[in-house]
Amino acid sequence: MRTITTAAGWRDLATTVMQRLDALGNISDEPGRLTRTFGSPAMRRANKLVGSWMREAGMTVRVDAIGNLIGHYAARSSQSTVHSPQSLIQGPKSSLLRQKHCGGQEVQSAKSVEAKSFLLGSHLDTVRNAGKFDGALGVLVAIACIQQFHDQGIRLRFVIEVVGFADEEGVRYSTAYLGSSVLAGTFDRRDLKRRDADGITMEQAIRDFGGRPEALTDARLKPEQLLGYVEVHIEQGPVLEQKGLAVGVVTAINGQTRAHLTFAGRAGHAGTTPMNLRRDALCAAAEFVSAVEALGRSERGLVATVGELEVVPGVSNVIPGEVRLSLDVRHAEDARRRAACAELRKCVRTIAAERKLRFQWQAVSEAPAVQCDWQLSVLLGEAVNRYQARVVLLPSGAGHDAAALAAITPVTMLFVRCKDGLSHHPAERASKEDVRVAISVLSDFLEGVTRSFRTPRDLPTGRSCLHSSNVSRI
Amino acid sequence: MRTITTAAGWRDLATTVMQRLDALGNISDEPGRLTRTFGSPAMRRANKLVGSWMREAGMTVRVDAIGNLIGHYAARSSQSTVHSPQSLIQGPKSSLLRQKHCGGQEVQSAKSVEAKSFLLGSHLDTVRNAGKFDGALGVLVAIACIQQFHDQGIRLRFVIEVVGFADEEGVRYSTAYLGSSVLAGTFDRRDLKRRDADGITMEQAIRDFGGRPEALTDARLKPEQLLGYVEVHIEQGPVLEQKGLAVGVVTAINGQTRAHLTFAGRAGHAGTTPMNLRRDALCAAAEFVSAVEALGRSERGLVATVGELEVVPGVSNVIPGEVRLSLDVRHAEDARRRAACAELRKCVRTIAAERKLRFQWQAVSEAPAVQCDWQLSVLLGEAVNRYQARVVLLPSGAGHDAAALAAITPVTMLFVRCKDGLSHHPAERASKEDVRVAISVLSDFLEGVTRSFRTPRDLPTGRSCLHSSNVSRI
Repeated sequence: MRTITTAAGWRDLATTVMQRLDALGNISDEPGRLTRTFGSPAMRRANKLVGSWMREAGMTVRVDAIGNLIGHYAARSSQSTVHSPQSLIQGPKSSLLRQKHCGGQEVQSAKSVEAKSFLLGSHLDTVRNAGKFDGALGVLVAIACIQQFHDQGIRLRFVIEVVGFADEEGVRYSTAYLGSSVLAGTFDRRDLKRRDADGITMEQAIRDFGGRPEALTDARLKPEQLLGYVEVHIEQGPVLEQKGLAVGVVTAINGQTRAHLTFAGRAGHAGTTPMNLRRDALCAAAEFVSAVEALGRSERGLVATVGELEVVPGVSNVIPGEVRLSLDVRHAEDARRRAACAELRKCVRTIAAERKLRFQWQAVSEAPAVQCDWQLSVLLGEAVNRYQARVVLLPSGAGHDAAALAAITPVTMLFVRCKDGLSHHPAERASKEDVRVAISVLSDFLEGVTRSFRTPRDLPTGRSCLHSSNVSRI
Repeated sequence: MRTITTAAGWRDLATTVMQRLDALGNISDEPGRLTRTFGSPAMRRANKLVGSWMREAGMTVRVDAIGNLIGHYAARSSQSTVHSPQSLIQGPKSSLLRQKHCGGQEVQSAKSVEAKSFLLGSHLDTVRNAGKFDGALGVLVAIACIQQFHDQGIRLRFVIEVVGFADEEGVRYSTAYLGSSVLAGTFDRRDLKRRDADGITMEQAIRDFGGRPEALTDARLKPEQLLGYVEVHIEQGPVLEQKGLAVGVVTAINGQTRAHLTFAGRAGHAGTTPMNLRRDALCAAAEFVSAVEALGRSERGLVATVGELEVVPGVSNVIPGEVRLSLDVRHAEDARRRAACAELRKCVRTIAAERKLRFQWQAVSEAPAVQCDWQLSVLLGEAVNRYQARVVLLPSGAGHDAAALAAITPVTMLFVRCKDGLSHHPAERASKEDVRVAISVLSDFLEGVTRSFRTPRDLPTGRSCLHSSNVSRI
């Protein structure tokens, strides 16, 4: 890909992506700030605008039953004209199944490739008062790659589909991965009964948007027709910035345990209760917060956070009688995350016992880690290695559509450095230079995928690349 | 006093006090809960009811310019008829001055006593949703003592005035010791401009209540006409309960430093920010809370509390960017309190520097400690010693009207055990048995005061009593 894309071409595409991010960032449900939630008028306008860019890049465009925007870039072979978007979803089963689609190491046989599609994408919805890079960047970088192919008359051996997911943030219905779960076939139909803040059910919202709630099950993609999924996303963290690198390869989407804890002691007069007669819930909580931090620091790759902490009654001259706090623990390996949580439970018990307090540990949610496909990550690392002196492998602490799609196809992700590690904030930002690197890496990656299917191999280059001294793991 | 009060008499008086606490506890500005604030209709009804009890006990009653209810129990001598309540305040200056009225050790000469008055009392206002013992108990125990004297035809050598202060809690105008500061002559006339939640100025509220804002300065008591002040109050803490004692002698009203602190770090995504790149304001605050507790525990008599703590943004998946918290430090000795605060400031600086956070330490208020008069406390201890195996000397962690009156006359206080150390709560409670002890102790104390004036001495009994092995200091 590098050989056929001029330096000038890269610059133009990066500039285009930056301009499009601005344009898309102005499409909002709220005046003066960016908020674009599932099924909203802003989402309709966003789909229309992004769809026009997809068409400009030579794609046919459709919106599926939940509202995902899907651009289809046909393959090189004659099949590219045969495979309508619909047939890709509902077409005849391929006889060339990949047995292990998630984390598997097998190489697709060259024979199967033409009938399949490779997915690129990210989400088009936002949080409230969002930045304009989260989600949108992944869609626009993918379109830029296809634009490049289209401009130069390049068709790959497989179909590429670029997806702008209808809802990843879950702002309107408190659902995660709503759009990608439909494509992955993991959507829970009971969620159709959920109501938004105005009392509108999800079912109605889908219908109002022009979707078809009754067709959600059929909208799922067939694993056997997929080659994989790659998502470009801002890092939402400070690692790349700190290391001075434009992009990094994601190895896994961390599993997450969320819990709510309560320490209940005894409120009392802050002036009249001697220290030795106190049962101060905040002192217990403080001890716990310190333990959470110490544990997080003690193990590479583990993050553990107390983000909420509420003191009851919360009056300056009253000893805190109760403290409620949140706990968020994440790790790329489920066993280590669970061990950390067990350690923290033990810690809570000890603190409470020593201070004669009661405690409660209420599990809120537990999401297992999703491993990125090693083969795809190696290909991505190879591509990164052409543009950066070092390849950083890092887990994603945040959830992404890739996690949902991992249920049906191998996934990987490319993280792009973002300023101050900031996301979900109007000031979130990736530089044009880094966006340019991301476009190039994604293009080269797709070339690498094509090559690996052309000549099935055990990816020796990739492996050696990713085990060499210029690779570091976070 | 013990010789002339029968056991049956004690029981009756304690029962009467308990019944009156119930009756007074029903006089509220809010239906279903006890709230009686300065200048309110409930305060008017409370003054009327308590005034009737004062009259029943042989006192003449007046309400002063701020709304304090004052019962006057005349002295034995001919002066008792001469000294009208008004003359006690505005009468001719006594030539028998006490040079050191606060914390002084001099003994009044017998000659001067008849022209002077001893003050008893506490406050009649309450916090919102209050218990019925805080404040009211001190007024009703004082009236019960006078009732006892009256019933038995006893007049002391000095006037006794029982004061029900109009406002100690400061709920309506955020003022402390409003009623007692007028009697002490420390009232700040600028406070007249303060407005309550409904926009009514204090000046108007005083007028509406029948008071005279223009006469507040003249309402001050003349130090040279005062012998001292003693206040009975529930402990509002757990010490007496924990020691199994009905009452204790207060040695000082602790000084207090209040401050607001802020730790400012950097918010970030709880999933994507590695532990070593965090600037978590809550982890810093937790370290500080633990340091506050450790310092409080390290020094006898020191109490240090973080009662408020607010996390910004306070979202489970966001690393706390800022934490605001309150600090409350109290000690009976100002130098030690200040040293503790200096230590904590140092601690904040260290924590912030090590974690690369910014911090702010905003002083809110500083109130110096008020020492109880040793001579009066010894007399009180002697009285306590007749009813309890042990005399406990303890500082008061909470503020009381005694602190304001200490500006013009020697003060001491008697604490009464309260259930679970609870106060400012509907469930606050002192037992009838303990109230009985308090009445007896107060009666005996007044007898002791009389005796000490009759035969000036260096209180050898008292000193020996309070230095013996049955005395413990908190």
